[in-house]
Amino acid sequence: MPRNQQILLDNRPQGEAVAGNFRLVSTDTPALQDGEVLVRHHYLSLDPYMRGRMNDSKSYAACQPLGEVMIGGTVGEVAESRHPAYAVGDAVVGMGGWQEYSVVQGNTAGALRKVDTRHVPLSHYLGAVGMPGVTAWYGLVKIIAPRAGETVVVSAASGAVGSAFAALAKARGCRVVGIAGGPEKCRYAVEELGFDACLDYREHADPKALGQALKVACPAGIDGYFENVGGWIMDAVMARMNAFGRIALCGMIAGYDGKPLPMANPALILISRLKIEGFIVSEHLEVWPEALAELGRLVATGQLHPRETIAQGLAAAPEAFLGLLKGQNLGKQLVRLV
Amino acid sequence: MPRNQQILLDNRPQGEAVAGNFRLVSTDTPALQDGEVLVRHHYLSLDPYMRGRMNDSKSYAACQPLGEVMIGGTVGEVAESRHPAYAVGDAVVGMGGWQEYSVVQGNTAGALRKVDTRHVPLSHYLGAVGMPGVTAWYGLVKIIAPRAGETVVVSAASGAVGSAFAALAKARGCRVVGIAGGPEKCRYAVEELGFDACLDYREHADPKALGQALKVACPAGIDGYFENVGGWIMDAVMARMNAFGRIALCGMIAGYDGKPLPMANPALILISRLKIEGFIVSEHLEVWPEALAELGRLVATGQLHPRETIAQGLAAAPEAFLGLLKGQNLGKQLVRLV
Repeated sequence: MPRNQQILLDNRPQGEAVAGNFRLVSTDTPALQDGEVLVRHHYLSLDPYMRGRMNDSKSYAACQPLGEVMIGGTVGEVAESRHPAYAVGDAVVGMGGWQEYSVVQGNTAGALRKVDTRHVPLSHYLGAVGMPGVTAWYGLVKIIAPRAGETVVVSAASGAVGSAFAALAKARGCRVVGIAGGPEKCRYAVEELGFDACLDYREHADPKALGQALKVACPAGIDGYFENVGGWIMDAVMARMNAFGRIALCGMIAGYDGKPLPMANPALILISRLKIEGFIVSEHLEVWPEALAELGRLVATGQLHPRETIAQGLAAAPEAFLGLLKGQNLGKQLVRLV
Repeated sequence: MPRNQQILLDNRPQGEAVAGNFRLVSTDTPALQDGEVLVRHHYLSLDPYMRGRMNDSKSYAACQPLGEVMIGGTVGEVAESRHPAYAVGDAVVGMGGWQEYSVVQGNTAGALRKVDTRHVPLSHYLGAVGMPGVTAWYGLVKIIAPRAGETVVVSAASGAVGSAFAALAKARGCRVVGIAGGPEKCRYAVEELGFDACLDYREHADPKALGQALKVACPAGIDGYFENVGGWIMDAVMARMNAFGRIALCGMIAGYDGKPLPMANPALILISRLKIEGFIVSEHLEVWPEALAELGRLVATGQLHPRETIAQGLAAAPEAFLGLLKGQNLGKQLVRLV
């Protein structure tokens, strides 16, 4: 019976999240019942949405209960099985949470999915060929729905969502412009991810300056925008949108800490006849097979080769998560648990 | 050759629009060329969108040139015709502007439309069975797209758009709640326009108070919102929207005078997975026949019997227009020119 380290949400953030909000504990993994599967996690996914779950207030998802294992996506292998569909050694993806092992009911729909690691590395099922990739796919394909030749922009461009967005948009013949923090991320976005241009919001540090940079980078205006951040960056992009532009609103990192985050000029929605749509990818399970198939092909054929920032060991998860919220990662942020 | 009084835009507003922005002049109507029609206007329509046109800044429509006749919808009768499709006495609707007569090229598509006044009074072709009615129709049918039993809300409820919206939404089995300024307008909305409830934003004079009133008036939350106003009223409604709610953004009266008009909490778009879409009804000519047919039926059968506020004589137009911007009218604001 292996020992299982876990990280619980101990208390809720007062403003900015801190390491003291989490608590590391150690327990025994329980003996399996019939129909159960014990999964040993190889990687834990860290994602911005987790910050919203830590609040008690109404968020766009259920809040994380205190004293329980933090929610989170995991990939790993079956360590023990009392379910006929799973064998020891199977590679699986699930929502195992911030812990080294999880016990899963094999019959629960969607709880565990076997994956093929011959062409796609296991960890990518938490990123480009997982939830972040499908998030990019849904926003681009279902909300922005670009025509070839249109210009699309994404914030947090070098992250897991942004990198998938770039590959998907290039495959559709779009001009793709990113926004990211710092020259290293911007260089990576252009040189490795295929962005046509990437703007450093630290260099263009207010809506007017970023607007000028967008004007140069998007000479035909902006037809679609995938918003991961919110706040003044969104204000700057909105001012450069073409008539009938579409904005897929997926994240508002800047607002998770409870600071007020107004939209400066919503009249632009009318003036430019924009469509803005908020979404959560887990509410659109019907698109996952199609999206994952395309994302898997892009990775297998080398059109999408995202980087990962990997922290080692469960105890490193809280600091890695806080760094993610501050944009310190490059590409997908993971924790390796083996 | 009748004399023709005209109102020109003389200078642009510095902040709030004033009567001195306009200038009344008198000219001769020109002799007709082949293919032209002289229309004597019976009514001039006054609409909030005209305020946007008065600004020089980028607005959601072309700006009104200085020294030219103010743009505006008109109904009237053919006074003289050198076009075979129009005969003296025909009732017509067009965009004749703020003047008593206009000369129209009979062949220009959409410039002049003959209407039937047997079941629908001529003036209603500027309101319920005209641009404001189609505006309500487009926002409700094409953007909000409500199911029977859903709750929809409209601001500026007692105006030309709001009254048509109520009849169209009731015909689709919705609960319809209005927002208007003052007890008289709210009573009129409920007693004559068929609203299930109407909230006085002067009584509930901040987002929190209006939010509480909306909670009572919309016990099942709000599924669709038709926005004519913007500003804090929109903030209050957004906070009460159900998941997957739709907002048709048609007007931002509160912002026309150049005051900044932020949206307090755009994160709600994500939290409640809202769709917000701005539109201008003149860009969707394909829906006009269907919309006008339904609106004409609703008027002819008495399901929609909107009131009008009528100013007398062209010289009264500027003050009537400024009053419209302040919400002093009840129902459709017109100027009678005969």
